[in-house]
Amino acid sequence: MALLMATGTQALRLALLQHACERDKAANLARVEAMLREAAAAGAQLAVTQELFTTLYFAQTEEDGHFTLAEPIPGPTTQRLGELAAELKLAISASIFEKRAAGLFHNTTVVIGPDAALRGAYRKMHIPDDPGFFEKYYFTPGDSMPSTDPGWRTFEVGGAQVGTLICWDQWFPEAARLTTLRGAQVLLYPTAIGWIPSEPRDVQFQQREAWRTMQVSHAIANGVFVAACNRVGTEGQITFWGSSFVADPSGRVIAQAEEAVEQVLLVDLDLSLIDAQRQAWPFLRDRRVDAYGDLLRRYVRA
Amino acid sequence: MALLMATGTQALRLALLQHACERDKAANLARVEAMLREAAAAGAQLAVTQELFTTLYFAQTEEDGHFTLAEPIPGPTTQRLGELAAELKLAISASIFEKRAAGLFHNTTVVIGPDAALRGAYRKMHIPDDPGFFEKYYFTPGDSMPSTDPGWRTFEVGGAQVGTLICWDQWFPEAARLTTLRGAQVLLYPTAIGWIPSEPRDVQFQQREAWRTMQVSHAIANGVFVAACNRVGTEGQITFWGSSFVADPSGRVIAQAEEAVEQVLLVDLDLSLIDAQRQAWPFLRDRRVDAYGDLLRRYVRA
Repeated sequence: MALLMATGTQALRLALLQHACERDKAANLARVEAMLREAAAAGAQLAVTQELFTTLYFAQTEEDGHFTLAEPIPGPTTQRLGELAAELKLAISASIFEKRAAGLFHNTTVVIGPDAALRGAYRKMHIPDDPGFFEKYYFTPGDSMPSTDPGWRTFEVGGAQVGTLICWDQWFPEAARLTTLRGAQVLLYPTAIGWIPSEPRDVQFQQREAWRTMQVSHAIANGVFVAACNRVGTEGQITFWGSSFVADPSGRVIAQAEEAVEQVLLVDLDLSLIDAQRQAWPFLRDRRVDAYGDLLRRYVRA
Repeated sequence: MALLMATGTQALRLALLQHACERDKAANLARVEAMLREAAAAGAQLAVTQELFTTLYFAQTEEDGHFTLAEPIPGPTTQRLGELAAELKLAISASIFEKRAAGLFHNTTVVIGPDAALRGAYRKMHIPDDPGFFEKYYFTPGDSMPSTDPGWRTFEVGGAQVGTLICWDQWFPEAARLTTLRGAQVLLYPTAIGWIPSEPRDVQFQQREAWRTMQVSHAIANGVFVAACNRVGTEGQITFWGSSFVADPSGRVIAQAEEAVEQVLLVDLDLSLIDAQRQAWPFLRDRRVDAYGDLLRRYVRA
């Protein structure tokens, strides 16, 4: 694909790792290691894993045994990724099924620097639950201690501020806005979303279109880059639809992966577009923060 | 176009009035009267005017003389529209350049019932200002008195709750969410947006695509219908791009007007889709109202 880096602009070279998963954790890690090597060889500064990339999407059912898939942070997976980050000299955003304490688990993104240092973690704030995606059984929602720790996170990577959100967060404009207000220039959405094969094709396409529309809208509303990284392959009742993509701050999709193919999606983010876009469409200037109080309520009418 | 009303469902028949404007207010009102008659003959229950439909888009320049175009509410335009609403037995959402007091003007939507009663008004909360759209000179932002009157509005029309937002509001997910939380099932966006003819065609298309993406995202994120009604025609430096549309709560565009043609866009909204969509994608269930406090800040990082 075309690389968009312009001479003299501040740019970040991003690699999204879109792949299928199998039962064996070591096999999934080996697959990601090969993709990280490919990304590094292409000059990527930040590699992004899809959601829960070391395992099958186990939340299709509620089974006590699946909790054994979780790991502490730091733990074996972050240790191995740290070694690879240092060897390959790139940062990694990695999705981990985190065991924080006995009976306390999170769906977590860690950001590891090219020096192998664990920069920190974001714990998925919005947790879905519907047939085939029983995440509320497994994942405690990310912490919120208003003002001291509201839960939202950004990390400095290669001179850029990267905001870490996860899958279901992508449907909530609040999450994108809050992460932007903390300085994010890029929003990452590691994802595990797919079709039920028995649904009509037009319904499937409409679901994927809605998924794309929502995330592109976050790019536009906030004047940021948005990168979604989804898995491929069929697991049980779900065919994951891949289609990982990156949108620029004007909402233009500048990189697009296939629906059913494993690939490292490489794209250069020209961060100077953020200034240009936000000055042309100055939404941050015009927010009515004096009139947004009811956003903190569940419902206003009743 | 296909009408989607299903027997036994709660439905609202909507008409969007997309047209060009000229200097003469009476001529614009006469054009809208003809369109209202067409809408009523087709069984519309609610007709929606485009933004500032009685005048040219005067905010292309800052001229003191343009303030004479404003009217009080109630005033001559709302009076005439009330007569038409009663005669034609339909409700009207009308965009008015409102003179509230000497030196105090708003960009306002009034909702008039089929009984000619003025149901109330919404004063545009987010006001744009960029070259060719000098609205901050003319329009005072809508009031906000937190908790007593936060500014956001819904109105009952034909058994449906209709939320009134205006043009620049369409770029702010906060506005769509706040109006939804007040019970809106349909969000109306009367609009005056267009291209600068000298811009490259691909930039123009990207702008319109972003405009559509944002509003469709409000439908998806909130599980509501969204209706955007834009003007057509070239006035001075702007060619208004029409393309009025309606999206359903899944984000499907169910009605779409042309780019440069005057037309009454008729569509039936099957309000039962709202329950179905919100139960399938229960975003309102999962909002993290405990962690949204920073939405009330201008910026968090600095």
